[in-house]
Amino acid sequence: MSAESNLQSLSIELPPAPEPMGVYKPIVIVDGLAYLSGHGPLNADGSLHKGRVGAEVGEEAGYAAARQTGLAMLATLRSELGSLDRVKRVVKLLGMVNSSADFENHPTVINGCSELFADVFGSEIGVGARSAVGMGSLPGNISVEIEGIFEVGS
Amino acid sequence: MSAESNLQSLSIELPPAPEPMGVYKPIVIVDGLAYLSGHGPLNADGSLHKGRVGAEVGEEAGYAAARQTGLAMLATLRSELGSLDRVKRVVKLLGMVNSSADFENHPTVINGCSELFADVFGSEIGVGARSAVGMGSLPGNISVEIEGIFEVGS
Amino acid sequence: MSAESNLQSLSIELPPAPEPMGVYKPIVIVDGLAYLSGHGPLNADGSLHKGRVGAEVGEEAGYAAARQTGLAMLATLRSELGSLDRVKRVVKLLGMVNSSADFENHPTVINGCSELFADVFGSEIGVGARSAVGMGSLPGNISVEIEGIFEVGS
Repeated sequence: MSAESNLQSLSIELPPAPEPMGVYKPIVIVDGLAYLSGHGPLNADGSLHKGRVGAEVGEEAGYAAARQTGLAMLATLRSELGSLDRVKRVVKLLGMVNSSADFENHPTVINGCSELFADVFGSEIGVGARSAVGMGSLPGNISVEIEGIFEVGS
Repeated sequence: MSAESNLQSLSIELPPAPEPMGVYKPIVIVDGLAYLSGHGPLNADGSLHKGRVGAEVGEEAGYAAARQTGLAMLATLRSELGSLDRVKRVVKLLGMVNSSADFENHPTVINGCSELFADVFGSEIGVGARSAVGMGSLPGNISVEIEGIFEVGS
Repeated sequence: MSAESNLQSLSIELPPAPEPMGVYKPIVIVDGLAYLSGHGPLNADGSLHKGRVGAEVGEEAGYAAARQTGLAMLATLRSELGSLDRVKRVVKLLGMVNSSADFENHPTVINGCSELFADVFGSEIGVGARSAVGMGSLPGNISVEIEGIFEVGS
């Protein structure tokens, strides 16, 4: 199964590819590696998952935010590449959780993105290296921001 | 216009290339990609822009700190490469703001660096992927720290 | 001296290579670069160095945690590569300290990892680019998390 056909059979619809919120490009490709900017949990209607995990929102809301962030990343990849089938491998994710100082379950939250990628790309090429950590704050008080490196083919 | 001539016509003078504050190199080049260590807002006189953005200093001071950090990164690049004209592309920046827990405008702050790079390298190759996020704390209470990946040529 | 013989002459024993705490791989190699996931200060008995540096634990405990994190990274590298002698260069580390908001000595803490790598690989190839920063929180309240990029050979 290809990533695009997996998306279809999972009935997953991607949000529109996000516009930059500053002076940057959502994606830059160099030597077969795609560097994705930090993405936020953008919904199809343009709204964002907001709130500090472990304080204003719970762990499950954080997981949902990470999954939505993953969908936004897929939208950026498809917009740039034409098809997600050109993704050869998830190389590395930096999963940043807007969390309270006493929050401890960042990996569980970022799994919301990683499990999506495993479903879409398969558990071998869809699962890469990762860090899952807690930030002091995030832009617009979004719950999660994730950046990533993907190997892409022609 | 080249990056070096842009610097001249903008009357921008770079601070001295920063010395490492620990056991690391300011820059490592591998396979045509230059990895820059996290840089701080180092002034020409050796002082640093300090203070938590959104608490001890305002957003405009944060912007100025990010611009100064960008100048320090350019100094490191020139010191290593001999000329900024060898920079082929800004690939990726991680812009880390020392900010209060309720600060929301990290992208605006990090634009201080990104707009400098756009001015120096041009808006195509000077603008790369980026994350702009809020840290719990930074070394010496500096306002901003930025690391980056640059494509470089011979 | 090779990295493996350095380890022996320093009487350093590595902990077991850490298992993933979520949906990720500890290491992914692409085009001669090994991307290591964020590692924590895992002891040989499976326990972890915990506590916020500058609040619950002191700077020296943070340094020890960073060194132990470096040992865990070496364990992952050896587990994947068979021998640490295949490491050609430390390219880049992102050293993340779980620290109080007023902590300022992140570089000193992360030196615990960097000095280990310099001892094992030598001060030329064992010292790369680096950022050392303060996080709002880390998984399981570990004191330090470090991710890295290493150049590896065959």
